[in-house]
Amino acid sequence: MSSIIMTQNVYDQPEFFNAYSRLRRSIEGLDGAAEWPAVRALLPDLRGLTVIDLGCGFGWFCRWASEQGAAQVLGLDVSEKMLARARAATSDTSISYEQADLERLSLPEGGFDLAYSSLAFHYVADVARLFAEMRRSLAVGGHLVFSTEHPIYMAPTKPGWLVDGSGAKTWPVDRYLLECPRTTDWLAKGVVEHHRTIGTTLNLLIRAGFVIEHVEEFCPTPEQIAARPELAGELERPMFLIVRARV
Amino acid sequence: MSSIIMTQNVYDQPEFFNAYSRLRRSIEGLDGAAEWPAVRALLPDLRGLTVIDLGCGFGWFCRWASEQGAAQVLGLDVSEKMLARARAATSDTSISYEQADLERLSLPEGGFDLAYSSLAFHYVADVARLFAEMRRSLAVGGHLVFSTEHPIYMAPTKPGWLVDGSGAKTWPVDRYLLECPRTTDWLAKGVVEHHRTIGTTLNLLIRAGFVIEHVEEFCPTPEQIAARPELAGELERPMFLIVRARV
Repeated sequence: MSSIIMTQNVYDQPEFFNAYSRLRRSIEGLDGAAEWPAVRALLPDLRGLTVIDLGCGFGWFCRWASEQGAAQVLGLDVSEKMLARARAATSDTSISYEQADLERLSLPEGGFDLAYSSLAFHYVADVARLFAEMRRSLAVGGHLVFSTEHPIYMAPTKPGWLVDGSGAKTWPVDRYLLECPRTTDWLAKGVVEHHRTIGTTLNLLIRAGFVIEHVEEFCPTPEQIAARPELAGELERPMFLIVRARV
Repeated sequence: MSSIIMTQNVYDQPEFFNAYSRLRRSIEGLDGAAEWPAVRALLPDLRGLTVIDLGCGFGWFCRWASEQGAAQVLGLDVSEKMLARARAATSDTSISYEQADLERLSLPEGGFDLAYSSLAFHYVADVARLFAEMRRSLAVGGHLVFSTEHPIYMAPTKPGWLVDGSGAKTWPVDRYLLECPRTTDWLAKGVVEHHRTIGTTLNLLIRAGFVIEHVEEFCPTPEQIAARPELAGELERPMFLIVRARV
């Protein structure tokens, strides 16, 4: 019963890629992502750091990190299409991009000061392996800062709002403790994500040798809700889990 | 705007006390609580340790800890009725009980090796203060192991199963990110609990100086479900959050 685990590369499917390219966060970059201010607040001073971005997509974060003074930035993604666009968007020689499968990543020991990842780890089946590899690749004092889809968001059989007669919305949680893949039709049919509880994610980090420094279930600020009223719905249930851990 | 925060002492209300006394965990003790095996697995070897139990109730854990070889066990509770029953249940001189309000607790510095608490912290409004006090009261190498009501369980406006036409059950989460008191009618009318996200609980522990060692969202084992089929429902959404942290 041996099987090679490979990240499903939905991003290179034309349907998914085209729909993804139209997302606010794809057009506006980091500032188009509601959770970005919360993630940014957890980042160390990037000046002089060697940074790796796991699941770099179009390279918005890589370019931003370089602008913040990072010495070197390596962006990894499974999608050749996204990497092509990322490469085309910069001539910054401190940034490099490589195609990589997060299920089978192999990195230089102690080669990085900061590992960053935005909404990629929920596509990874074997995060225990990935966290161990991240731990090994970080220098002493290094940090891992990542966002992932929140398990409350991912758990349900029917992940969508229930609206009652009065207009009140609830998120129908079930199967929260059944840690197995979820297949969604987000942007394309049959996208596979890997549901894990918060506890499992944190325990795997701890067992890999990380110290948990901050755990955040994304909540829009009053200012964000004033600017984008549709974000008020995010108070009902969290969409993103954000973690900072250190070596 | 000064106000004295005091734990609501629902336990001494006759209606609550009588209903609580009839719970499986009140009659059978630790083994009557589904989450106990998961909590027990996180405890250190108790031999020779000085132990404090915050919210000791009828004293089941205090007696068990003494049987396991704890040198001294101090049980605290806000309820005089529960303490009276706890005192009556043992003549073990290594156990002592004291009435205490967890909102205003003051403990000897470094006086304990293990702080334990079962399902009490969700009644505490100012857990930041409590965690700081716990941190101060634990000796170097000491542990804090506690369970609390899971925020998914506590968050909803209407905390109860929704059952659809096919019999499928979902837990209608809303207000998850609104961290404020919840008033429930569990065992008695108007019981006040303090809703906090997992992130908030963990971040307050970290800021108080704790290192997070394990985070568990209680899931019944297949053996438990075979013995008590009604526990299968617990797979849909977690009822308890269990944490081990160390100084």
